[in-house]
Amino acid sequence: MVSFIFFDIDDTLFPSTEFSELARRNAIHAIVRMGLECGEGDVEKMLEEVIKERGSNYPHHFDEALKRLGVKNRAKYVAAAVAAYHDTKIAILPYPEVPAMLAALKQAGAKLYIASEGLEVKQWDKLIRMHLEYYFDEVFVSEKGELGKSPEFYRQIAKRAGARPEDCLMAGDREDKDILPAKKAGMLTFRVFRGKYAVKPRTTAADFNGKDLRQIVKIVKKLS
Amino acid sequence: MVSFIFFDIDDTLFPSTEFSELARRNAIHAIVRMGLECGEGDVEKMLEEVIKERGSNYPHHFDEALKRLGVKNRAKYVAAAVAAYHDTKIAILPYPEVPAMLAALKQAGAKLYIASEGLEVKQWDKLIRMHLEYYFDEVFVSEKGELGKSPEFYRQIAKRAGARPEDCLMAGDREDKDILPAKKAGMLTFRVFRGKYAVKPRTTAADFNGKDLRQIVKIVKKLS
Repeated sequence: MVSFIFFDIDDTLFPSTEFSELARRNAIHAIVRMGLECGEGDVEKMLEEVIKERGSNYPHHFDEALKRLGVKNRAKYVAAAVAAYHDTKIAILPYPEVPAMLAALKQAGAKLYIASEGLEVKQWDKLIRMHLEYYFDEVFVSEKGELGKSPEFYRQIAKRAGARPEDCLMAGDREDKDILPAKKAGMLTFRVFRGKYAVKPRTTAADFNGKDLRQIVKIVKKLS
Repeated sequence: MVSFIFFDIDDTLFPSTEFSELARRNAIHAIVRMGLECGEGDVEKMLEEVIKERGSNYPHHFDEALKRLGVKNRAKYVAAAVAAYHDTKIAILPYPEVPAMLAALKQAGAKLYIASEGLEVKQWDKLIRMHLEYYFDEVFVSEKGELGKSPEFYRQIAKRAGARPEDCLMAGDREDKDILPAKKAGMLTFRVFRGKYAVKPRTTAADFNGKDLRQIVKIVKKLS
């Protein structure tokens, strides 16, 4: 009986790639609106250069990009950019079918979990922003320097949920992190073809797949 | 001719004390709403203890307070608290007379500045959140380890604004940081009796004072 359902978050429950791009664009608009005499294209190009060099977790992207463009008195532009970026990032919304699907799974008696990488507080923050925080029994996060999304990670979280792997279904957008290792751990898998990892034609080793998560309710009901 | 007007921000342009209290209260509500079986009073008391011990800039208040209350799996409560706290802090609004007063000063030909302590980006963020960012010609911030709000700080910012001190008016809520040192630097001063530093009866060495900033427009017009 498959009644322990695990979900990835980014590009599975919400369009994270789209929101990141929108956040960056809104930040650049805010810099120009603040009065910087500079084309949006120039800022965007420089920002990409900085992100490429420093990595996406570097906390001073905007300041560094503006500095390289020769901008003095950068505080107001940085403040405007960060505010706009942040406002966009906290306004995330789930994919349209997600809330009703989670509610239907709950009603069918399933227990719901997040299986994710990164920082636990940050993953909870995303659920809270999407108003999905009450659907999930637990959030399992492989933090930096831990297992990653390995078969061992999936084995452990099944155990922590009190489930046998064969009673679990893992749903995610990435073959390498969500499907293959979960399958190796003995879970059933659902690949969603969404976001930047979607490919055509759809090829996957997952037991089930779809362009959204709608079918999961039927699958779970059928297997229980 | 007094046409260079300097303003403090906290408890001068907006009720910062009130907003900080509201932010903390909203954070505690969010923790309880997230399902913590614990009285709001207990969390509040523990939080005060942590803030007292660690100082108000310690970045892990909520986690530390919950830890001391014996709460395990704190990530979701911390995420909820931080989100609620942050949402309140970015929703700051200026005191009601402020936008119209600034617009009237601008129209009268005055140049407007912020004279503040702390981090420059953070002060700009407050102006942006209040939608006051276009009124100010420059934001002068005495960052940590610099002059503080000393007479020398006020002398320097008058110079940087291209003004003689006697053509400047400094408005703020604190006698020690806004009024006395600015006066010593040769500026005119306006003490506003607001927030936690307001006292009764009103005693001040400032040239002008009031319970809000409304009169500044008249004062500036009269002196120009």
